[in-house]
Amino acid sequence: MNTYISVDVGGTQIRVAVYPETGTQALRIKKVATVGEGTPLERLIATVHDQMSPDENVKAIGICVPGPVDAEKGVISFCANLEGWENLPMRDILQAEFNVPVVIGNDANLAALGEWKYGAGRGHKNVVYFTISTGVGGGVVADNRLLHGHKGLATELGHTFLEPDSHYPCGCGQFGHLESFSSGTGIAYYANEQLNLGRESILQGKGKVNARDVAEAAQAGDALALETYARASKFLAYGIVNTLHTFNPSAVIFGGGVSMVGDLLFAPIKEALPKLVYSQDYLDDLHFAMAELGDDVGLLGCLALAHMETE
Amino acid sequence: MNTYISVDVGGTQIRVAVYPETGTQALRIKKVATVGEGTPLERLIATVHDQMSPDENVKAIGICVPGPVDAEKGVISFCANLEGWENLPMRDILQAEFNVPVVIGNDANLAALGEWKYGAGRGHKNVVYFTISTGVGGGVVADNRLLHGHKGLATELGHTFLEPDSHYPCGCGQFGHLESFSSGTGIAYYANEQLNLGRESILQGKGKVNARDVAEAAQAGDALALETYARASKFLAYGIVNTLHTFNPSAVIFGGGVSMVGDLLFAPIKEALPKLVYSQDYLDDLHFAMAELGDDVGLLGCLALAHMETE
Repeated sequence: MNTYISVDVGGTQIRVAVYPETGTQALRIKKVATVGEGTPLERLIATVHDQMSPDENVKAIGICVPGPVDAEKGVISFCANLEGWENLPMRDILQAEFNVPVVIGNDANLAALGEWKYGAGRGHKNVVYFTISTGVGGGVVADNRLLHGHKGLATELGHTFLEPDSHYPCGCGQFGHLESFSSGTGIAYYANEQLNLGRESILQGKGKVNARDVAEAAQAGDALALETYARASKFLAYGIVNTLHTFNPSAVIFGGGVSMVGDLLFAPIKEALPKLVYSQDYLDDLHFAMAELGDDVGLLGCLALAHMETE
Repeated sequence: MNTYISVDVGGTQIRVAVYPETGTQALRIKKVATVGEGTPLERLIATVHDQMSPDENVKAIGICVPGPVDAEKGVISFCANLEGWENLPMRDILQAEFNVPVVIGNDANLAALGEWKYGAGRGHKNVVYFTISTGVGGGVVADNRLLHGHKGLATELGHTFLEPDSHYPCGCGQFGHLESFSSGTGIAYYANEQLNLGRESILQGKGKVNARDVAEAAQAGDALALETYARASKFLAYGIVNTLHTFNPSAVIFGGGVSMVGDLLFAPIKEALPKLVYSQDYLDDLHFAMAELGDDVGLLGCLALAHMETE
């Protein structure tokens, strides 16, 4: 039988899934730790070999990695958490190793592609995807095509300035990016800053808090925690409006751990959007939804990319 | 002989050009005032008829209008300066009238397309175009395709928040957009505000100044005028970086009257960019250029669109 292989590379684990020619139900999934005996690349290759079967004909392998990729050349530009993965010609290495077509993409971009093809963006031609977790990532499908840009560095939506004269830091070293305000790190930063300033809160005296602590305090009605999430919502609304005005999508989809808090983050955004758009036409039939693919979004994004490559 | 017809609709004039099947040298160009006897649409139709010749076979007509267009349906959403042009099915009207394929686009989008095909963006697959005049407009070619979005409302790059809590107004009614700071209107607004506050300047006592007055004062070394342009540059640099991180283009092109001031606006930007990008890869082989097509950019954008439609 014909199969597709998806490889989702993360900082802590590498997941390899084998899919049949049609459908999104994996035949088998194998997880290995990214760091261990041998290099991550050697571990990846060994795990893919291990998942191949002589009864199966692999039509293509799709890989997603946590860093920018030059999709045209199949070269990984860099991966913050994977030592030595800099200007790594991953596609050529793997094609030589496995002798099948290999396609590579960035994790947030492929999550967008996965949600567009199999998840919350099905049937939409223009989709903006935000992943809100430690940082803020993004991916965009415009007119049914994934945006890569010249060197695979497009749609770093978390790294756009929303208040450039701000002192709030971004994970990338700049200040006042969307990620500075609306990521888990940004939420924790503001709460800790305010706690250090002596603000009254049930979080006082608990040491350094994280975004989950703040969410729990907000759910308990704590004023500082509520203010912290309201601020994250406010800036996320600005960031969303900027992408509406930039891409005019018919669907905006949210994934990532921080997005799981739901209404605490999103109710104020839905209320704010009509007041912030240039024209109500941007909102008229806008589908505003949570990601549907959960932990498999990377694997399914690879699958979507592998299908596009071979169809 | 085969020809293409381009129609550039502005608030003050309608220009109709007839082009041969190959090349960008118009066979003839006719200008008429947009407002006069009959409606603008009637005047447009009459002028196109007037430019048609029985010896020529028109392969397609391309139209650009100063407002958002649903390219797929060929419907003009609205045009601020053209009364009654709201949800106007321009394509169907003109196809019925002339019995040839008609394609329609927004002026800033088609300027981007024109510069990509015939001007400063030739040979680049990913181009961001800014027009900086009374307002700030934008257009983007991504992977050799013009971005429209779901309803033709994409790439309103001037209407993205850069400092949402700002009191500086945008032409669209919002505050703190790129246009609020870096357009001709935004430059004049800040200078007039500072003059009203009693700031020392050679512009004091001259009444309400415009962006050109400020540019002249800056060239004469006036401190307030220099500060005003430095501020416009600073925010334009943030806006450019946001588009680099969003589209990762290999070319960024600037048109529009305010961009003509050259180094006064752009020298500080070139200096700022390396400090503001997420990775130097965004700048490595970035082509940073002035638009080349001048007043004909709209006509040539229509021509590019008409060619794409029929090829």
